[in-house]
Amino acid sequence: MYIGIDLGGTNIAVGLVSDEGKILYKISAPTKAERPGEEIIKDMAMLAEKVVKDAGMSWDDIKSVGIGTPGTCDDKNGVVIYANNLRFDNVPVKTEFQKYIDKPVYIGNDANVAALAEYYAAGGNTDSFVAITLGTGVGGGIVLNGKIHTGEAGGAGELGHIMLIYGGEQCTCGRKGCWETYASATALIKQTKEAIMKNPDSLMNEMIEGNLDNVNGKVPFDAAKQGDATAKAVIDKYMEYVAVGIADIINIFQPEMIVIGGGICKEGDYLLNPIKKLCKGECYGNVLETKIEIAKLGNDAGIIGAAFLGK
Amino acid sequence: MYIGIDLGGTNIAVGLVSDEGKILYKISAPTKAERPGEEIIKDMAMLAEKVVKDAGMSWDDIKSVGIGTPGTCDDKNGVVIYANNLRFDNVPVKTEFQKYIDKPVYIGNDANVAALAEYYAAGGNTDSFVAITLGTGVGGGIVLNGKIHTGEAGGAGELGHIMLIYGGEQCTCGRKGCWETYASATALIKQTKEAIMKNPDSLMNEMIEGNLDNVNGKVPFDAAKQGDATAKAVIDKYMEYVAVGIADIINIFQPEMIVIGGGICKEGDYLLNPIKKLCKGECYGNVLETKIEIAKLGNDAGIIGAAFLGK
Repeated sequence: MYIGIDLGGTNIAVGLVSDEGKILYKISAPTKAERPGEEIIKDMAMLAEKVVKDAGMSWDDIKSVGIGTPGTCDDKNGVVIYANNLRFDNVPVKTEFQKYIDKPVYIGNDANVAALAEYYAAGGNTDSFVAITLGTGVGGGIVLNGKIHTGEAGGAGELGHIMLIYGGEQCTCGRKGCWETYASATALIKQTKEAIMKNPDSLMNEMIEGNLDNVNGKVPFDAAKQGDATAKAVIDKYMEYVAVGIADIINIFQPEMIVIGGGICKEGDYLLNPIKKLCKGECYGNVLETKIEIAKLGNDAGIIGAAFLGK
Repeated sequence: MYIGIDLGGTNIAVGLVSDEGKILYKISAPTKAERPGEEIIKDMAMLAEKVVKDAGMSWDDIKSVGIGTPGTCDDKNGVVIYANNLRFDNVPVKTEFQKYIDKPVYIGNDANVAALAEYYAAGGNTDSFVAITLGTGVGGGIVLNGKIHTGEAGGAGELGHIMLIYGGEQCTCGRKGCWETYASATALIKQTKEAIMKNPDSLMNEMIEGNLDNVNGKVPFDAAKQGDATAKAVIDKYMEYVAVGIADIINIFQPEMIVIGGGICKEGDYLLNPIKKLCKGECYGNVLETKIEIAKLGNDAGIIGAAFLGK
């Protein structure tokens, strides 16, 4: 068994994870991210201690502890080089954590460990595997031969930050036109709001009771399914944006499998089938050799993937 | 020693390559690409035979034969799945070649094997290595842990076909706005011609004696170095295009090293330094952890990389 810790800007979630990737027990507590790193790390250790105790286990039953964290990691040395929303700057997470718990400790970027979890959930037998998450941004992780591809300095897998339209929408990363400015859930919401403002007769306006603050990623999908032309146009364009970026990843890597995660993926085949078709048209040679599927684990991927860092 | 064969649409080049990657002897002959695959393969075998004989060697001195070919390869089975400019369609190159020469035979995509050669030329000690070629198109190859990353069905490394401006310039691959439509040597020539037409007073117009057919990739660089503002603007924009695509590759992979090849690379630091600076601005976190260098081998990369498929 493993301990997996999903360190987020808002909450710390700690779980006991079986060798098969099932969360047997989990607890969480607020991160209070404004605190010094040492305090946050101490809390993580105390929470891990509590999980082991509450679950009726001893540390002898635990092979290792894995921590998924936002930001850039030096996974070899267990240091968080930089995490903006945690105010972490070269924090030696591994060493600090081991002051409290004498077990092997592994750290990894949160999007990367989520990809690792999805890799195992998909069978753990693909040579090359990419997970993308359509959320606030577009996150990503690459798993090659069962290992996270972290890149030269922990910065690989920033899949949301490939160019879609050079000079286009302003991205939080500083570039203009990154894929995530068109294909994230945030982008879909923006595109939906713009469409409603231009077409106030759209069913979507009724669904949100005329209040743009009520727009979420589900609204355009629900309205499109009911035949609303404005919503259909938004969704069609959005799926195009998603597919173009996926095709880029395929033209570079041609991974065996790509899984798509994030809230929007609850749309299932309604999202997946058009994207597969669009990707085929965008891929080099118009052949789609990569399997594209919906991610399986949802929010649990963070804990499970962190736990599997030691696998 | 190895035999490396660079099978091109125009010529077949065959070389005897030392373990250190030096071409000891080479010959070439026209491909006559309109012929059936069997005839072309027979010619390759005869040329290889001649190289071994002319160099005063015997086949006992040769460890293996490698063949770099355009198109998509099934490297496991030694089959060229599809090569447009050779009219190859599921041609069993390895089996066919071994009818004549009883040695291990390896095949690989030409851009991929060139990347393998550059990987060794750069020391052969980088975990992740990417070679791009700014030529007629933008070619590429990825070497991970000393092996070419071919992807699920031999289609990885189509680095020229990532999106730069979705809906932009028409690409030969069918997409609109691929990187290669802005960053290839062909694109630079097009951009230069357009600039000259708009600014006939440019020094470039004088250099080409008023004949747009005389434009090549060197013209705008030469004129820019002499202070021509129009040429400078062309080069600045072109380097931006090149840098944006390289930054995409870094945001995905963060390889240890990227080398840039193709005729334009004769510009050396005049090209490299601005590109490095621009890349830093485009990379996630504005940190450039990837070494970017000029490719070392030129046209010999094809033969050397093919030879090294057996290394």
